Amino acid sequence: MSELYVVGLGPGGKEFLTGQAMTALEKADVLCGYTVYVDLVSPLFPGKETYTTPMTREIDRCRWALETAQSGRPVAMVCSGDAGVYGMAAPILELAPDYPGVDIEVVPGVTAALSGGSVLGAPLGHDFCVISLSDLLTSWPVIENRLRCAAMGDFAVALYNPASRKRKDHLRRACDILLEHKSGDTVCGWVRNIGREGQEKKVLTLSQLREEELDMFTTVFIGSSTTRQIGGTMVTPRGYDKK
Amino acid sequence: MSELYVVGLGPGGKEFLTGQAMTALEKADVLCGYTVYVDLVSPLFPGKETYTTPMTREIDRCRWALETAQSGRPVAMVCSGDAGVYGMAAPILELAPDYPGVDIEVVPGVTAALSGGSVLGAPLGHDFCVISLSDLLTSWPVIENRLRCAAMGDFAVALYNPASRKRKDHLRRACDILLEHKSGDTVCGWVRNIGREGQEKKVLTLSQLREEELDMFTTVFIGSSTTRQIGGTMVTPRGYDKK
Repeated sequence: MSELYVVGLGPGGKEFLTGQAMTALEKADVLCGYTVYVDLVSPLFPGKETYTTPMTREIDRCRWALETAQSGRPVAMVCSGDAGVYGMAAPILELAPDYPGVDIEVVPGVTAALSGGSVLGAPLGHDFCVISLSDLLTSWPVIENRLRCAAMGDFAVALYNPASRKRKDHLRRACDILLEHKSGDTVCGWVRNIGREGQEKKVLTLSQLREEELDMFTTVFIGSSTTRQIGGTMVTPRGYDKK
Repeated sequence: MSELYVVGLGPGGKEFLTGQAMTALEKADVLCGYTVYVDLVSPLFPGKETYTTPMTREIDRCRWALETAQSGRPVAMVCSGDAGVYGMAAPILELAPDYPGVDIEVVPGVTAALSGGSVLGAPLGHDFCVISLSDLLTSWPVIENRLRCAAMGDFAVALYNPASRKRKDHLRRACDILLEHKSGDTVCGWVRNIGREGQEKKVLTLSQLREEELDMFTTVFIGSSTTRQIGGTMVTPRGYDKK
């Protein structure tokens, strides 16, 4: 019986790891996860065993990690960003009752809403929502309803998975829903390849965002009614200056 | 002219700092911030100058940091959790046009939604909102509307600042609004003193949460309709098992 660490790596580079994440990766015998994420950290631990599966084999990967920990070898299941936010902590915990005795530790990390937000300035400086536009695991009407409610609540919003090869028009459809309740002048932004080589960013209006062609390596930020563009940055004030 | 780093510390202990945050703190001549947060990291840098102000003097503190950086000394403004989420990045960027030439770098950190979430399991495994119940800077009707929209969107929710000495009934009022749209059996949880001595947690129903007496050191999690309690953990599935 051993430890299973579910570790959020942040955007990828070593500088975004917390000390807690580094310790968990060190303690593990095996680094396990989606190929792209394991490749980000395995160079930090030369010679350490890895176990990778492609994007769509999450449940197999989780069961392998739980079995391996149960057999007595400490495992780190790595996730980009945070371990909990659209990460592997939930499926691991759902499967855990089948593997009694495994000691599961969830190690949080800097999710793209925060790392991407820091690149743009402070787009999530007040109440906010995080919504994924991927309809692989969530029905589109559920996503539409959440977009509508986020707009009606005047939340700042971080959108994950704004597009993919098969879902080229999701961002435009999302913007159309938001535009039912929000001004076309709403300050928005996006960041691509956060913290990686080729990082790009842009601050623009909601009307302009609707016309952008983005990819799955991009995180999108929609402002609230109070969000401002200040010298190239995107800022949602909390209102400290109004006291 | 020098750098001003706005640094998210995570919940406080050294193990929650990212490498990027540690580097920024090292490079700074002065550590500046709310007294409690500066005290968390100043022991890591013995002898480094500190500048602290009480909770309600945020704008003075930001101006001091900008002036100091402008005079040529690198400064780190420290924030608990993330630098952007209810943090000092927004007011610093709002004031920045008055201090031309200061190079501002926002360093993200693990906000309480993520660190507290990892203690409970994976309460934010699907789309979620973060809402502060403090009405010091936000009017209560705005907060009420956001709670209502979060409930109508069936988001998981992290509530910051659920109570204070002056706002003892905010959590109960928030639960009453959520209960208009959500079942009393909705799985909820709270974590107190995240990552610090005396950390406590509890998983409970929304009806039970309404009766809790919590304080400002607590972060509260409200489940979506799919959130489950699994062996003492709180888990919001994304639905990998349904593929």
